[in-house]
Amino acid sequence: MTSGDLNAVLEEARRLVEPKGEEAVREVSEEFKRYIASRIEEAGVRGEVALVGSAARGTWLPDKIDIDLFIILSRDYPKEFINNLLSIIRKFLDKDNISYELRYAEHPYITAHYKGFDIDIVPCFKIAPGEAPITAADRSPLHHQYLLARLDDERRLSVRLLKRFMRGIGVYGAEVRVEGFSGYLTELLVVRYGSFLDVLKAAARWRPYKTVIDIEGYYKPQEALKKFKSPLVVVDPVDKNRNAAAAVSLTSMSTFILAAKMFLRRPSLSYFEPRRTPALAVPTIALVFPWPGGAPDAAWGRLKRIARALANKVEECGFKVLRWGVGGEEGREARVVLLLESYELPQWELHVGPPAASDAAEAFVEKYLGEEVVGPFVEGGRVYVVRRRKITRVEDCLAKTARDLGLRFDIAIGVGTDLASKTPWLT
Amino acid sequence: MTSGDLNAVLEEARRLVEPKGEEAVREVSEEFKRYIASRIEEAGVRGEVALVGSAARGTWLPDKIDIDLFIILSRDYPKEFINNLLSIIRKFLDKDNISYELRYAEHPYITAHYKGFDIDIVPCFKIAPGEAPITAADRSPLHHQYLLARLDDERRLSVRLLKRFMRGIGVYGAEVRVEGFSGYLTELLVVRYGSFLDVLKAAARWRPYKTVIDIEGYYKPQEALKKFKSPLVVVDPVDKNRNAAAAVSLTSMSTFILAAKMFLRRPSLSYFEPRRTPALAVPTIALVFPWPGGAPDAAWGRLKRIARALANKVEECGFKVLRWGVGGEEGREARVVLLLESYELPQWELHVGPPAASDAAEAFVEKYLGEEVVGPFVEGGRVYVVRRRKITRVEDCLAKTARDLGLRFDIAIGVGTDLASKTPWLT
Repeated sequence: MTSGDLNAVLEEARRLVEPKGEEAVREVSEEFKRYIASRIEEAGVRGEVALVGSAARGTWLPDKIDIDLFIILSRDYPKEFINNLLSIIRKFLDKDNISYELRYAEHPYITAHYKGFDIDIVPCFKIAPGEAPITAADRSPLHHQYLLARLDDERRLSVRLLKRFMRGIGVYGAEVRVEGFSGYLTELLVVRYGSFLDVLKAAARWRPYKTVIDIEGYYKPQEALKKFKSPLVVVDPVDKNRNAAAAVSLTSMSTFILAAKMFLRRPSLSYFEPRRTPALAVPTIALVFPWPGGAPDAAWGRLKRIARALANKVEECGFKVLRWGVGGEEGREARVVLLLESYELPQWELHVGPPAASDAAEAFVEKYLGEEVVGPFVEGGRVYVVRRRKITRVEDCLAKTARDLGLRFDIAIGVGTDLASKTPWLT
Repeated sequence: MTSGDLNAVLEEARRLVEPKGEEAVREVSEEFKRYIASRIEEAGVRGEVALVGSAARGTWLPDKIDIDLFIILSRDYPKEFINNLLSIIRKFLDKDNISYELRYAEHPYITAHYKGFDIDIVPCFKIAPGEAPITAADRSPLHHQYLLARLDDERRLSVRLLKRFMRGIGVYGAEVRVEGFSGYLTELLVVRYGSFLDVLKAAARWRPYKTVIDIEGYYKPQEALKKFKSPLVVVDPVDKNRNAAAAVSLTSMSTFILAAKMFLRRPSLSYFEPRRTPALAVPTIALVFPWPGGAPDAAWGRLKRIARALANKVEECGFKVLRWGVGGEEGREARVVLLLESYELPQWELHVGPPAASDAAEAFVEKYLGEEVVGPFVEGGRVYVVRRRKITRVEDCLAKTARDLGLRFDIAIGVGTDLASKTPWLT
């Protein structure tokens, strides 16, 4: 491939990530900020109101805008004041006829619906760089200041390209469902390496558990690796005790490294706009659960643990799991999907017994004396028997597993799934 | 089970091993010995003629008598004189109209057919105990003298019981086909432990690579284990540099240990008279070769190596080999038998690629870009692909293997074989 192709691909990708209606976003945000600031002041709350996040920095993706308005409280207030503040806000939003929802993630906030936009109103406490946060949201204003000072228009574009690229390959987002790169992390990478392409070139040389990105130079690399013990370590410039890449799983980091290499070798728009292909006829089982409820991160975490346990149990029955994954729709249903070599196992299996010279061998042989088996026979130092499998159908294995683990699910057999397709970003 | 059962079983077993026509064997042997001795003397050969082996000691099994007549030459003769001696013997056998065959095993000898018996005429050289032998047969007269002085009628019976027991469980014979206990070794075990039951009681406590039987006390046990490095070490009383159990494989030793324990726990005539049961419907493949020719030990050795290689190749194709073995009929055909989980493999397989961050990962992904595969995908630190198997039928795997190894064989599918049955000596 020639670099001409690369330029053509980047040109098309730039069009995909071009922000639309930037002017409107800015105007509505500023207007809402002024509104909140005045209402807060009227209520006598001591604190500043600030637009932070990707909308305020011009690094959002066109189809996914998050406007974040932070109310940064004086540290004089106790932590519990956050709930009072939320009540105050709800009261004036009600009075002013602005619709909203109260939300709880790690931290409570309000999403207001204002002039066609969703605006998150997030209370937090004012901290200085390096200072320990009181709530999970306290660092965001610092992150915003840090990035704002270091991003020009060219770099904003790079951030948007990188986000879209990461979304295309399935590693964008720090939530448990993805275990990938947060928006803040993508921006730090651009700050560190300078451009979208430079990030990819650097990532192509990353090695899991060996790569440290420490923009402010707080640590020697070995120190940082020892301290954070993550596949990828990116020291947070505003808090040297935090790894901004702590959420990035080995799978996500490895996927990004591989995708970076492959894109540089053979540039394609498919990384930004994945082309899904039909599922192949690989034996597939989907286990469908009611959505477990609770915070999404907790729910996805639990679902992944269940999926791993189910895959292990199915392998213990003798099935070979080719690939597994989780899916579903938050609030509605959760799915564990298993690709298998086969739905059914051979009738006979080799069962390995104890060493032939051990006392356990006698009990082993006794056990199979009256059974319809091949053997028991000795081979080398061990006793073996070829016996009928108790479970040969995957449905029976799953029914047993459901009883063992105390789970309830519906089983769908032979469903199509992206897990059974070609990798959509590789063309 | 009560000891009454043990006595009843042993009583029946004794009847099975009762020698028949002992008088006739003795008379014909002695007559033939005198005949050979006089002819040898006439020819001016310096040496003695001696009846050795199980027939001469009364330890043969009723249905398998080997009469061994040794011509023990003076050590003045060069080794090559053996061939002259064989010519001399053939000449007078021809003249006296006694039919015979010239045979070559490790060592050349003549089998004469005389008054309804097969008598082996074996030339060897006279050596003293501990002296290095010139031919493989030289120790036999020493073995005979050693055992004759130590076996009374009760012990002869024990030897016959032990031989029959070992034959029943498939470990009797030092030849490569069996890799088991030689006749001489069974007799040494009775000399060491005193009786058939005492041998079993001792064997029940044997441990492979840890058991040393050194009747004459030549070594400390650790010394003997270090020197001989075999699953079972039985120092030859007439040659302390020889392990009389060198031929015993780990499988044969372990089988004997297990059978000894099981018999003592639950005595049954089935150990002496195994009860074959029909083969179970386990997927079975027999590969049939023309008999390779050469000495039987060499042929069986080669056949076992081929069997192991074939079993490995079939597993490399993805099949699970439950059990394998060799068989056939010397001089006619050789067989390798494989019990398999299935004749056919699933269409899809998981193919594990290199670490995702390695350069090899790029080549791996490139390779599968145009193929109909699931993935390539990253899981943890590695790249994988789910691809179609090239070979799914065992016949195709075997055809490929035949080409790879330069072998020719016929394939028989679904044949019945003892390998697919219950162990016939366990009831």
